[in-house]
Amino acid sequence: MISRRDFLGGMAAAAWQTRTSPPAQLAPPALRVDPRVLRARIETLSAFGRPAGGTFADGVSRTAYSDADVAGRAYVIGEMKAAGLQPRIDPAGNIFGRREGLSPQLPAILFGSHIDSVPSGGNFDGDLGSLSALGAIEALNAAGVRTRHPTEMVVWAHEESYAFGRGLACSRIAAGDVTPADMDEIWNGMRRGDAIRKIGGDPDRILDARRAKGSHHCYLELHIEQGGTLERAGLPIGVVEGIVAIDRYDATITGVANHSGTTPIAERHDALLAASYLTIAVRDAATRIPGRQVATAGRIEVMPNSANVIPGLVHLSVELRDLDPHKLTSMMDDIRARARDIAANTGTTIAFRELARAAPAFATPDVQRAIEQAAAKLNLGSARLPSGAGHDAQMMALLGPMGMIFVPSVGGISHSPKELTRWDDCARGADVLLQTILEMDRLS
Amino acid sequence: MISRRDFLGGMAAAAWQTRTSPPAQLAPPALRVDPRVLRARIETLSAFGRPAGGTFADGVSRTAYSDADVAGRAYVIGEMKAAGLQPRIDPAGNIFGRREGLSPQLPAILFGSHIDSVPSGGNFDGDLGSLSALGAIEALNAAGVRTRHPTEMVVWAHEESYAFGRGLACSRIAAGDVTPADMDEIWNGMRRGDAIRKIGGDPDRILDARRAKGSHHCYLELHIEQGGTLERAGLPIGVVEGIVAIDRYDATITGVANHSGTTPIAERHDALLAASYLTIAVRDAATRIPGRQVATAGRIEVMPNSANVIPGLVHLSVELRDLDPHKLTSMMDDIRARARDIAANTGTTIAFRELARAAPAFATPDVQRAIEQAAAKLNLGSARLPSGAGHDAQMMALLGPMGMIFVPSVGGISHSPKELTRWDDCARGADVLLQTILEMDRLS
Repeated sequence: MISRRDFLGGMAAAAWQTRTSPPAQLAPPALRVDPRVLRARIETLSAFGRPAGGTFADGVSRTAYSDADVAGRAYVIGEMKAAGLQPRIDPAGNIFGRREGLSPQLPAILFGSHIDSVPSGGNFDGDLGSLSALGAIEALNAAGVRTRHPTEMVVWAHEESYAFGRGLACSRIAAGDVTPADMDEIWNGMRRGDAIRKIGGDPDRILDARRAKGSHHCYLELHIEQGGTLERAGLPIGVVEGIVAIDRYDATITGVANHSGTTPIAERHDALLAASYLTIAVRDAATRIPGRQVATAGRIEVMPNSANVIPGLVHLSVELRDLDPHKLTSMMDDIRARARDIAANTGTTIAFRELARAAPAFATPDVQRAIEQAAAKLNLGSARLPSGAGHDAQMMALLGPMGMIFVPSVGGISHSPKELTRWDDCARGADVLLQTILEMDRLS
Repeated sequence: MISRRDFLGGMAAAAWQTRTSPPAQLAPPALRVDPRVLRARIETLSAFGRPAGGTFADGVSRTAYSDADVAGRAYVIGEMKAAGLQPRIDPAGNIFGRREGLSPQLPAILFGSHIDSVPSGGNFDGDLGSLSALGAIEALNAAGVRTRHPTEMVVWAHEESYAFGRGLACSRIAAGDVTPADMDEIWNGMRRGDAIRKIGGDPDRILDARRAKGSHHCYLELHIEQGGTLERAGLPIGVVEGIVAIDRYDATITGVANHSGTTPIAERHDALLAASYLTIAVRDAATRIPGRQVATAGRIEVMPNSANVIPGLVHLSVELRDLDPHKLTSMMDDIRARARDIAANTGTTIAFRELARAAPAFATPDVQRAIEQAAAKLNLGSARLPSGAGHDAQMMALLGPMGMIFVPSVGGISHSPKELTRWDDCARGADVLLQTILEMDRLS
C-alpha cells in the first residue's frame, strides 16, 4: 500500500533501483538522537509516580489519569516546547507535536508511544518510545534536515489496561472506536469524561479526536520488547511482524459468605476456593495445546476479604493472547467447560463477561523493510518477531501503514520495577526510529 | 470454683436441695427482657455502617474504629444513659455500665458482647448480646429486683478480626495481654493508640484497662451460634462447652511480576497461581483427617493486581480452628509440606508468619449448669455444643468463671448480610441471659 519514491527529504535526491541496496553513503553519520538527553529525560520522567523514598530501580506507578500521570505529561509537554514544538492535546487527551515538511500537503509521518504505566511498572515501557520520538525531531532540527512529509510525534494517553479495566483507550478513540456515551463510564468513582478532562482532553468534543484513514503517511513506534527473545538471540533490534489478538474476560464467582469458624468445610460455598481452581484452569488452557499462546489470571477482587470470613464473591480477570484469534476461542471454550465442573464441585456459580477483544494487527511489509534497512544502515542486527503485548500501534494499523521497532528487555522482564533496557540499546532503538522516519519519507 | 448459695437476690430466699430441680414457682414470670425494645434497638443500631441506600437486610460494615463504629457506640451509650446507667469507657475503649447490688463488696456479674462487625457483616453478631445485656438491666430495674452482686454490662471494643489483622483486641487488653508499645502498631496508616483514642479510650493509660483475676463474679455472653447446629436440632438455646483454639498465619508468596503477553507460561513465576494451589492445600488439610476442624483462606492481597501483569507477590491468610490445639499443629505441618512442593513447582517462594494464636477456652461447668437451669425455668430446650467462633468470653475465661448462651442462626449463616436470628429466638436468648444472671447471683 506504499509505493516508493527515490527521495531523501531535504538532502540531495538519489535514484535508488532497489530498497535492498540502499546507498549507505547518503545516510548522514552525524544524524543521531542524543543518547545523553534521552537517558536524562527517561530518568527525570521516572520521578513522576515513583514510590515514596524510592530510586529509579523502584519503578513507577503512573497509571492513566493519576496525579503522577498529569505531572509526567506536563513534564513532557514542557520538553516538547523547549524543543520548539507547539504541543497540541486532542479531545481524547493524546499529545501531538508536529514539525512541518517540504510538502505540507503530504500526510505526516506519525511516531510515538505512551507514558502511562501499570501499577508498580517500569521506566521504559512507553517512555522510551515517547522520548525517542522527541529526540528524533530534535535530531532533525539539529542537523537542519528537511523531510518531505511533515513529521509528528505523539504521546498516547491511557495505553495500559488498568484504568476503566481497558487499555489502548485513547489511541482507540483516535482510530474512531468511540461514542459520546463512553464518556459516562464510571471506574473507581471517576467518570471517564472527567478523567479525560483531567489530562487536558475535551470529552464534550470527543468525536473530534477521531482521525481519518490515510490521515498520516505511516505510524512508527519504538518500544521495549517486554519479552526475552532479542536478548536470547543477542540482537539489538526487533522488527515486529504483528501484534497478538487479546481477549479479556471478568469471571464472577458467587458463593456464600459465612463465618470461617462455624461453617463445616462440607457446607461451604467458598468463592475463593473456586477461583483458585479456575486460576489453575486458565493456566492449563494455555499449556494443554502446542504453541506460544498465553493465558493469565492477573487480577482478583474478593468480598469481603477477611481472614475469618469464607469468601462469598470473587472477580477474577482472564486474559488470552495469540496471533491466531481461533486459538483464543478454543482456549476460552476449554476454560468455560472447566468452570462448569468447578462451580458444580464447589457449590458456586461462575459467569464470564467479555471485557475487551482486540483483533491481531499485522505490521505493513513495507514498513518492516524500512526498519530493517534503517538497522542495516546503522550496522545493527535485527530479527522479525511477533509482539505478545498490545500496543497503540495496533489501533493505528486500522488507519494506515504501521511498523514497530523493538529493543531488548533484560531478562524479558516488564510491567515490573525490574524492567530494564540498557542505555546503549535505548540509543540504538532511537537511532533506528530516526532512520526509519527518513526511510519512510522516501516512500509515498 | 463457684459454690452455691440458696439466695435469690432481692426476692424471697429459698433453700434448694439440688440445682437440677429449681423451684420454678420462684421465677418471676413478669421478669422478661422487653422484646420490642430489643428489636427496635437492633434495628436502629443496624443503620450505623449500613451500605448507602440499603435496608436492614443489606447488613452492616461497622468495622472497629470506623466512623460507623464511633456512631454506633455513641448510640448505645445514649441508650445506656436513658436506662439510668452511667457509662464508663475504660482506657482500651470498652464500655461498661454498672448497676449496684445489695452487697457492694461482692464482685460484679459481668455480661455483654460487642457491636463492631466484619466488613459486610450481619446485624446480630455481637449486637444481640450487647443490647440484651442492656435489656436485662432494664428488666431488673423495671421489676425492682435487687441482686446480691452488682451487675455490670459491657460492650467490648474491636472484637472482629479485621482492624490491625486481629480480633478480641480490647477484651484481650482487659485480660492483661497488652504492653504500651502495642499502641504504636500501624494498620492502614492508622496508629493503634490513635484508633483507641478515636473510640474514647486513653492509650496513655492502656495498662489501667487490665482487670484483676477474680475482679468479677463471672462473665456471661449471649451470642448467635453462627453455625447451623441449633437450627438443625430444633433447639432454641445452646450452652457453650468451650471455644475452639484458633491459629492464624499470613502466607507470603513471592514470584516475579512480568508482562502477561510477552512471558511464556514456562518462564513464569506466578504468585497467584501458587496461591491458588495453596488455597486448595489449606482446604485439604482440614478434610484429609477425620473431625470437625476447619481451615480457611479468606483474605488475599495481590501485587500489582492488574489483568495484564503476572502477579509477583501475594499475601494469603491461613486460619485453622479446632478445640484440640494439637490438630492445628498437625494441619499446619501438612500445609507447610504442601507449600514446599507448590513453591518448587511454580518457581515461587512461600513463607508463613504466625499472626495470632488463641488457646481453647472452656466454659465453667457451674456456669453451664446455671444456663441450663435458666433455660429450663423458661421451658426452653437446650443442648451443649462447642463454639467454632472466637469470642470475648475466651479472654474473660482467663480472669474467672465464664459461660456463653447461643441462639440459632438461620441457615447457619453469619459474617454476612444474610445473617439472621429470628426475633423470637433473640427474645428467648435475652431472657435466658437474664435468668442466668439471677442463677449466678445465688452462687458465691
